[in-house]
Order: sequence, then structure tokens, then C-alpha cells
Amino acid sequence: MTTRTLHLNAFLMGVGHHEAAWRHPRTEPARLTDVRHYQQLARVAERGRLDSLFLADGLALQGDVRHNALGGLEPLTLLSALATVTDHIGLIATVSTTYNEPFHVARKFASLDHISGGRAGWNIVTSAAEAEARNFGIERPAHADRYARATEFLEVVTKLWDSWEDDAVVGDRRAGLYADAGRIHPLDHDGTHFRVRGPLNTSRTPQGHPLLVQAGSSQDGKEFAARFAEAVFTAQQTLAEGQEFYADLKGRMARYGRNPGELLVLPGISPIIGSTEREALRLEKELEDLIIPAYGLAQLSHMTGIELSHDDLDRPLPEVSVETEGAQSRRKLVIDLARRENLTVRRLLGRLAGGRGHRVVAGTPEQIADEIQVWFENGAADGFNIMPPTLPGGLEDFVDHVVPELQIRGLFRREYEGRTLRENYGLARPASRYAAPARDEELDAVVAS
Amino acid sequence: MTTRTLHLNAFLMGVGHHEAAWRHPRTEPARLTDVRHYQQLARVAERGRLDSLFLADGLALQGDVRHNALGGLEPLTLLSALATVTDHIGLIATVSTTYNEPFHVARKFASLDHISGGRAGWNIVTSAAEAEARNFGIERPAHADRYARATEFLEVVTKLWDSWEDDAVVGDRRAGLYADAGRIHPLDHDGTHFRVRGPLNTSRTPQGHPLLVQAGSSQDGKEFAARFAEAVFTAQQTLAEGQEFYADLKGRMARYGRNPGELLVLPGISPIIGSTEREALRLEKELEDLIIPAYGLAQLSHMTGIELSHDDLDRPLPEVSVETEGAQSRRKLVIDLARRENLTVRRLLGRLAGGRGHRVVAGTPEQIADEIQVWFENGAADGFNIMPPTLPGGLEDFVDHVVPELQIRGLFRREYEGRTLRENYGLARPASRYAAPARDEELDAVVAS
Repeated sequence: MTTRTLHLNAFLMGVGHHEAAWRHPRTEPARLTDVRHYQQLARVAERGRLDSLFLADGLALQGDVRHNALGGLEPLTLLSALATVTDHIGLIATVSTTYNEPFHVARKFASLDHISGGRAGWNIVTSAAEAEARNFGIERPAHADRYARATEFLEVVTKLWDSWEDDAVVGDRRAGLYADAGRIHPLDHDGTHFRVRGPLNTSRTPQGHPLLVQAGSSQDGKEFAARFAEAVFTAQQTLAEGQEFYADLKGRMARYGRNPGELLVLPGISPIIGSTEREALRLEKELEDLIIPAYGLAQLSHMTGIELSHDDLDRPLPEVSVETEGAQSRRKLVIDLARRENLTVRRLLGRLAGGRGHRVVAGTPEQIADEIQVWFENGAADGFNIMPPTLPGGLEDFVDHVVPELQIRGLFRREYEGRTLRENYGLARPASRYAAPARDEELDAVVAS
Repeated sequence: MTTRTLHLNAFLMGVGHHEAAWRHPRTEPARLTDVRHYQQLARVAERGRLDSLFLADGLALQGDVRHNALGGLEPLTLLSALATVTDHIGLIATVSTTYNEPFHVARKFASLDHISGGRAGWNIVTSAAEAEARNFGIERPAHADRYARATEFLEVVTKLWDSWEDDAVVGDRRAGLYADAGRIHPLDHDGTHFRVRGPLNTSRTPQGHPLLVQAGSSQDGKEFAARFAEAVFTAQQTLAEGQEFYADLKGRMARYGRNPGELLVLPGISPIIGSTEREALRLEKELEDLIIPAYGLAQLSHMTGIELSHDDLDRPLPEVSVETEGAQSRRKLVIDLARRENLTVRRLLGRLAGGRGHRVVAGTPEQIADEIQVWFENGAADGFNIMPPTLPGGLEDFVDHVVPELQIRGLFRREYEGRTLRENYGLARPASRYAAPARDEELDAVVAS
């Protein structure tokens, strides 16, 4: 038994994370744009008492649409439709800081936080793909410039969320006083990337700040996470790598005046679950047999920067230099994986098809729980980002078979601790930076009375 | 009896359109950020078989928050939460073309159209307020520049909506062919304001194009509406003005190759409803008695450009020149109203408090229906934009008492004609501009077989 509680996020992606999921009999690819599909997934995740669900996003059609189910829904629009059919689960959407304005982003997440009763989270991305820049008429900014913008973006967004103090709305109908204007603050932000007057035109939300999530693993990404993020999604293939990342990230927090408990590290895991190990391996093989090599080759070429063709399938990955730092952490992970396990390109495609570099584990519920427990108890994870190979089936398997095993082991909750995402993640609700301390005491006195 | 069908839109605004609604016992101002309030309104409007509901929006906190219930939810985020609790009603959100990017806007409305099964509509605005510009770090662009950008914005958005042909998704699991890449098109748009590569990363939606709505009444605004809009919300005080606007707008359409039936003109009306005329007038008086003159004076000063104080309350509006054209159509309307009816400033505030320049009619359900019928049958309206003074009560009154009267007169539907907003508005579904005609015939053959 441990006194820490595991945190689990359901990473939802179309009809499954495996790139061939749409071809497998367990899925219905026509449900890609059907809100009821996602509502069902949200309800299943909530039945499993998962902390949150998460939708990734990009701002361009990427990957070969001939061979994968692409063209789904925009995350923020979708999440408020999921908020209304759930009560507890957190709702995390990916939104880019490179191709947006802070006022819009602050307002949409504030709205989602109101609509969901305090369950909104923002996965902050800086949009690395050139294809995305081409949909916004600009050259893709350099990595460091994207992070510089993201940093100021976060300053502005959090100021906007703070611009209405908690007790700004008075609502005194008799006196005709709706709000105390002295508790609603302009920002007058005037920075390098943004000039924003404020205040926000949406009142202070249940969580104060919707939860801040991040997934970059570059130096800039880790530094950004150490400063702002409250949860980090990450791809780590081995326990040793997971431990190193965990210690590295948590170690960076002190310089921003934060303690390690204020950030949850959630590595990705794609669990391929069978009632026996043989059944799990059979499902893994079924999915692998549905892979279209041309699709994977294009993805792998894009990810590694190596031009690959069908002729390379049964050879090892060509030798290339790997920068150990910089923007391309996923590239390094993939090349390391191929070298470490001495994989042919074909085998590497199979390993990547399940989770695009995230760890894939096929086994019984007990074996999956073992993996989770080892990482959780050995300084590599505060929880996991669950990436079911097929949806809804793979999520149902996890909720019905792995979650009970984790509960029996005392690792995972049987009931939600709170109503907001912050409460379930065990994170504090931030105060408004504009609130005078004396006023807070007054408010406490009012609340206590 | 008429063979035309009236179209009715529920214009939802917080706890009511009357600026003092939040002080009236019929409302609960704390519901301003409560999604259940809006879900209730959507269900009431759908019970009344209204075509659509609509949320206005601005990108700054405008008006004095001390004296009015401000700081509500962002429309697009809210609408998908309403989509999931309704089946038929159209869902129209205001989004600005001045402070957004076409790729985002196309994608969010496409997502809402998928989520709602073809009920999304976009009220296109260009954001006239200086306060809005200050939240985006730029000088407010001139009126003509805003419309020039809006025009190109619409070109890009509709191209993005067309970028996936209707039959682009094949979904052949056995062959491993998800989509026909030849039916998904880049735009390669390269214009004055935007360079957008495309295609969209959301597939073709049920309506093809979410419905395009507009509300500008300037020359530029009317020209833009004649070119793009399929429904127009407008403020018109008298039948003669309504007729003039209606004929003017419809007369402009031919130059864009459109016929008058492809655009619905929906003037605003705030119905204050009583079972007797006396009861209606009493409710109007109750609301008027709750007005805070300082709030209305500030609004009126802003709207007219005339500095007004408490000392002016019992005098006529000072003489000012009124341009007959240009950006300030609402200014002209207000000044004309004061002159025509010889109103003191105090009386003018009372007239504006109900609908900010939209027509306010207090009376019995029969009297309200009479007004609607006269405008509908005399070339001033294809329907109305219903602006209840209080919410939900004012909308319930309209649905329970005015709608049945309109149905008895044969003016309004008893059941929805279709499932999409376009079907209920009686408007065609646009074809993708990228679809080859021959392919359309093939598709028809497939659909018919």
C-alpha cells in the first residue's frame, strides 16, 4: 500500500490510438465525427473514476488521409458537449499558443470551466508542424521563439483569469449593484508579443485557473513545464528514462518557487489487454497485421527526418546523428528505441503504430497494473496517460479490468475526492493576483459565518 | 392564410434583454454562467418549434458592470453544450472576423455542425468597439477595412468548408482506404489579408456550410449581407422603415447572382406579454422602474456620441447632425426615434432599455401576433428575432401564448420541417465548389440506388 494516489487520464483519439484501429472489427470509423461516440467514452472513463480525459489537436490535416481516420472534431467545441453528460471527469483540450490570441483562449477555457463546474484543463502546445504555419499565412516561428511567445501568452491568460476577483459579483438587486467594479481589474499588459487591456468579459471561474497541462520534452519545453504546468504528458519507453525525466522535471521547479507536488508527471501507456497474455498478444498481432506500411513509413520519415521506402522495411534504421537536446525529443526517442532493441524498420513501425512513440504494453490486467505500479512506486510517474488502442473497446477493457486491479492494490480511488479537476488531481486553487490580502480575510470571515 | 412560413429566432441574452431584467423578480442573475439556464431556454424554444436560437457576443467587457449582469459565457463553447440537449433547433453564435483567423473559425463551426447534426449558424460581425481592439493589441481598423477583411475571411472559410467533398470519406476497411485524397482539396488561398493552404482538418459537415447570418445595417454591411448572408437580424422601429430596409437588402442580391428567397430578413422584437394589455403595460412599467439612469445615460452617450448627464433627463435629446449613411446606423435609429416621438432623454432611455434600439411591443399575445403578422404580410419581414425582456419567463410567455396564436393563424409551423437549420429556414444545402459535376451525378446515382 502507498499513501500517494495514482492519477489516470484517458487520452481519447478518434476510434483508437493504434494507427490501424479504424480497420479493426472492434471500431466504427464513421463515429469519428459523432458526438455520441465521445459522450460514450466520457461516461466510460467516469465510470472508471478516471481523473480526466484529454483531446490532442493539430491545426492542419497531417498524415495520409488515405490510410488513417483523420478529419475529426475541434477539441474545445467537443468538450463542452461532453461536460453536459458527465459530473466529475476533468476535460482537457489542446490549444496552441502560436496561432491564437490570449484573450480568446482565456475566455473559451473560462467558459468551459463554468459550463463544466470546474473541470476544464488546457494542454498548451506551440505547434511544431510546418503544415500548421501554412494555414495561418506565416513562416513557422523557430522553436525558441514559439516558447518565448508561449511564456508571455501564459502570463496574459492567467492575468485575464485573475481579472475578476472571486467576490467581484455582488448581485444586489435591491441596491442595483451587480458587481463591485473595484474587484474587476484591467491588466494593461504591454509586452513583446501582446498588448492586452482586459479585463476578461467572463467572470472568475470555479477553478480560478483551469488546469495547465503541457507535453513538451525539449529543454525549452521542460523549462516551460517547470514554470507553468500542473500536469505533464510525456512519452518514455523505459523505467530508467521515465525516472530520469521525472527527476529532471521536478528538479527544475524550485527555481520558479514551486514544489514538486504541484506538478503531476503522467507518462503515456497504450495497454493492449487480454484475459490471458496470449489473448493480449493476439489482439496486438491483429492490429499489427492491419498496418499499412506506406502510412507508417511516411510518419516515420517525417518523425526522424530520414527518407524511408519499402526497400528499407527489413533493414535496420539507417545511421543518423541524434542531437541530445533541442526541439526533437520524439525523434531521439524513436531512434534510441530502434537501436536499443536492434529493430528492423518493419518492427519499428509495429512498435510505433500503437502509440507514436509512447509505450505499448500487451498483457493481462494484472500485468498492466504491475507496469503501472512499478513506475508509480519508483519515481517515474504520478499517474498515467492511458491511450487505448481501440475506442471504445480498449477503454472499456481498461476501466472494467485494470482499474479494479489498481483499486484492489490500494493505488487508485474508488470514488472521486472532489468535484473539480484540481480537487481530483490534488492541486490547489490559485488566488487572484489582484485580490488584496485583507479582502481575502474578510471573505473568509463571510464564508465562515 | 399565407403560403409563406414565418421564421422565428430566439435571441438569448443572459437573464433577459431588458437592461434591468437582472433586478426583476422573474429572473435569477446568478444563472448568467449556469449552463442549465441556457439548456432550459433551448428546450423552451424547441418546444415552441422556433427555428433557431442565437447568442450575441463582444470581445471586451462593455457597459457598466456595476449596473448590469455582464461577464457571461463565450457563445461557441456554450452552443455545443446546448446541441446535446436539443434535436431540432438551430444554434447561431456570433464570431468576429476582425480578431480571428479563418482556419479556426471554419473548424469550430464545422465541429459544431457535426456535433449538432447540421444545426450550426454563424452570425458574422466585424467588431466595431474600440475596447475590443485594445484586447488584441491593435488599433481598431476602419469600418471599410473591417468589411474588406470580412469579405476575404468569408471566401476562405467557405473554401475550407468545401475542401472535403461530400463523398471524400470512403471508409473501406478491407482495402485500407479511409478517404479519397482526390476529393480533399488544398485551397492555396493567397489574398490581401490571408494566406491559407488548407484543406480543413475536419470533414465535410451535414449542412455543407453552416448557416451565414449577419446584422450590419450600414452600406457596407448591407452589401456584405446581400453577397453572403442567409439570414439578417436588424433593428427597425416602424413598418415603413422595415419595408424600406427589406426592399433595399433584397434588391441588392441580384448583383451577386442570388435571388431574394435565399436570404431571410428577421427584425428584432422584444415582446412584453400580458394576458391583458393592462398586465403587459404593468410588466413594462415594473421593468422601467428598475432602470438605473446612470447606466442608460452612459449607453446612450456611447451610442449617440452626445455627452449626457442627469441634468439632461427631462429635456429633449440635444440637436446633433445625423449622417444618413456610414457605420452608425444604430445612432441614426436612436436619434430618429427621439425626434419622431418627441421624447425626453428619460423617456428615450425607457424606450431603449428594452431592446437597445430594437422594437419593444407590450400587449396581449393577440396584439403581439398582430404586429408580427402585419410586418410579415407587408414586405417588412420573413420572420422575427425574438428578444424576451426576461429569461426564461419572457421566452416561456412567447412560446406558450404567442406561438399558438401564430399557429392558429396558419403563420407558423406546428412541427419542424427538417432536421437541419437550413431545412427549417427553407434554404438550400450548398455543393462543394471543388466537386466535379460528373462526380455529383455519379453520387446521385449511388444515393438513388
